[in-house]
Amino acid sequence: MKSIAADPASLRPAPPWTMSEWLNADAPVTLESLRGRVVVAFAFQMLCPGCIHESIPQARRVQETFGGGGVATIGLHTVFEHHAAMRPVSLRAFAHENRLTFPIGVDAYDGDDPAPLTMSAYRMQGTPTLLLIDRRGRLRRQRFGHVPDLALGAEIMALIGEAG
Amino acid sequence: MKSIAADPASLRPAPPWTMSEWLNADAPVTLESLRGRVVVAFAFQMLCPGCIHESIPQARRVQETFGGGGVATIGLHTVFEHHAAMRPVSLRAFAHENRLTFPIGVDAYDGDDPAPLTMSAYRMQGTPTLLLIDRRGRLRRQRFGHVPDLALGAEIMALIGEAG
Amino acid sequence: MKSIAADPASLRPAPPWTMSEWLNADAPVTLESLRGRVVVAFAFQMLCPGCIHESIPQARRVQETFGGGGVATIGLHTVFEHHAAMRPVSLRAFAHENRLTFPIGVDAYDGDDPAPLTMSAYRMQGTPTLLLIDRRGRLRRQRFGHVPDLALGAEIMALIGEAG
Amino acid sequence: MKSIAADPASLRPAPPWTMSEWLNADAPVTLESLRGRVVVAFAFQMLCPGCIHESIPQARRVQETFGGGGVATIGLHTVFEHHAAMRPVSLRAFAHENRLTFPIGVDAYDGDDPAPLTMSAYRMQGTPTLLLIDRRGRLRRQRFGHVPDLALGAEIMALIGEAG
Repeated sequence: MKSIAADPASLRPAPPWTMSEWLNADAPVTLESLRGRVVVAFAFQMLCPGCIHESIPQARRVQETFGGGGVATIGLHTVFEHHAAMRPVSLRAFAHENRLTFPIGVDAYDGDDPAPLTMSAYRMQGTPTLLLIDRRGRLRRQRFGHVPDLALGAEIMALIGEAG
Repeated sequence: MKSIAADPASLRPAPPWTMSEWLNADAPVTLESLRGRVVVAFAFQMLCPGCIHESIPQARRVQETFGGGGVATIGLHTVFEHHAAMRPVSLRAFAHENRLTFPIGVDAYDGDDPAPLTMSAYRMQGTPTLLLIDRRGRLRRQRFGHVPDLALGAEIMALIGEAG
Repeated sequence: MKSIAADPASLRPAPPWTMSEWLNADAPVTLESLRGRVVVAFAFQMLCPGCIHESIPQARRVQETFGGGGVATIGLHTVFEHHAAMRPVSLRAFAHENRLTFPIGVDAYDGDDPAPLTMSAYRMQGTPTLLLIDRRGRLRRQRFGHVPDLALGAEIMALIGEAG
Repeated sequence: MKSIAADPASLRPAPPWTMSEWLNADAPVTLESLRGRVVVAFAFQMLCPGCIHESIPQARRVQETFGGGGVATIGLHTVFEHHAAMRPVSLRAFAHENRLTFPIGVDAYDGDDPAPLTMSAYRMQGTPTLLLIDRRGRLRRQRFGHVPDLALGAEIMALIGEAG
């Protein structure tokens, strides 16, 4: 496994999230509000088979395993295709049926691009995409596709072990 | 395994299907049009976790294993909850993303009952529900929940072995 | 799925089994003693990963699904490599730990060939190998490797449906 | 997840290993020879179903994910039942067939106790049992049963992050 450690000078802050709404949250979740916590964010589409079969179950395991004050599990619904099929009304039923209780943001559009704003800001290649953000709000890992649990557990713990 | 055989005199014809539209079909699929073939029909909802993780993959395996003239694999989208979340536009994206190529009917409503018409006619208890219909159009098995592949393969073959 | 049916005239009787001992059986199990029943026999080696992960669990499912008078589930321990590692004392512990209750024959040697006698008589290519024998003692299917449950269930039922 | 951190003063050194032989190693592997590395040791029996289906595949994933200088993956064959069934000759074939390349020690007996010496020294309750030993040779985690990958990855990384 490659170390998650990198030249601290080269680390860039995670781009802000631009969401049109949030599920499972009383107020919009911002990177500022998560400062001091390790953030494990799963960008997904509710009809993407890889997301349904691998990413969402993994998000639930992360929440169960690391839930508590220090680690925040977040979903980002980054729809870039079949927009009419995956509106928030469908996402809410999806979250309900799968008993997802972590906050899920709905990535916003500006109307010109099929890819939503946050997805574009992070230059994601597709879904699922995993983001790991450290306690200081810096993007430490971005990965398109599936990350095995063993490696993900290690990467989360590496960030937990860093000073806030 | 219990035998699928039963007193032929007690067998009732399968109730007709009342669908508002069909995917993956040039024309509405009726029980009459399927006469002479063994019908394996999977009633499902696209956001029902048991359907996504067990029933739909099994439908694909049935189509692959028994595909051809003698056996028809059919999906029936019997939405009885979260109606706004699972409209045909979402179902079409679901079918596309999961590469489903068998005909899928959208069970119709009359506006008063949350359960759609075909679901009610069969008195289904929920989703997933499996229907096995013989070459003569008679309902031979109706099962709520998951049927293991080994038993399902046997039941399909028992119906294949019967005279048309 | 290809039909298991074949020109009856071309069907050959299954070669006899030559076993040095039997587990889970009061007396040696012969093809003659199984006449009138459909026989599903799993040739395996207890240290073959494909056998452990696929074939043996499938044998248990066959026994559970079709157990009863009409179908016999049988194991054949056809060791052709690592002989000292898979002696009957080890096989017995394997069967105990995996709670196997169907009869298991230990394929016999004549001392010159690493492959045991029954394996050679059937010209098996390796393990796992599935044998399907009809009620009249004729070998109807021999397959090296894994047969999916759906197809296996259908093939067993096709043989059940034949006259004894 | 509970922290693996504990009062350092209470940490005890891992009891020495007493093995009668080693597979996949040129010389006996001792805790002293592993000092400076994080040790992930899987105590197993080659015929224990939970070991075969969960623990051994996990050991392979640990080796693949963390392989390299800093983490040592070790197998400990702690046979406490069916002794004649799981002799080293069988274990070697098991390791060969499953392509295990990490060192595996054969826990030794003194002849009076069915449980072998190392198993007794650690007071293990059964198999599989996971041991995590830190760079300084101290036993930091002992767990009977399965540890999910996400938690195990985190615990290994916590130990990697500690000073040697």
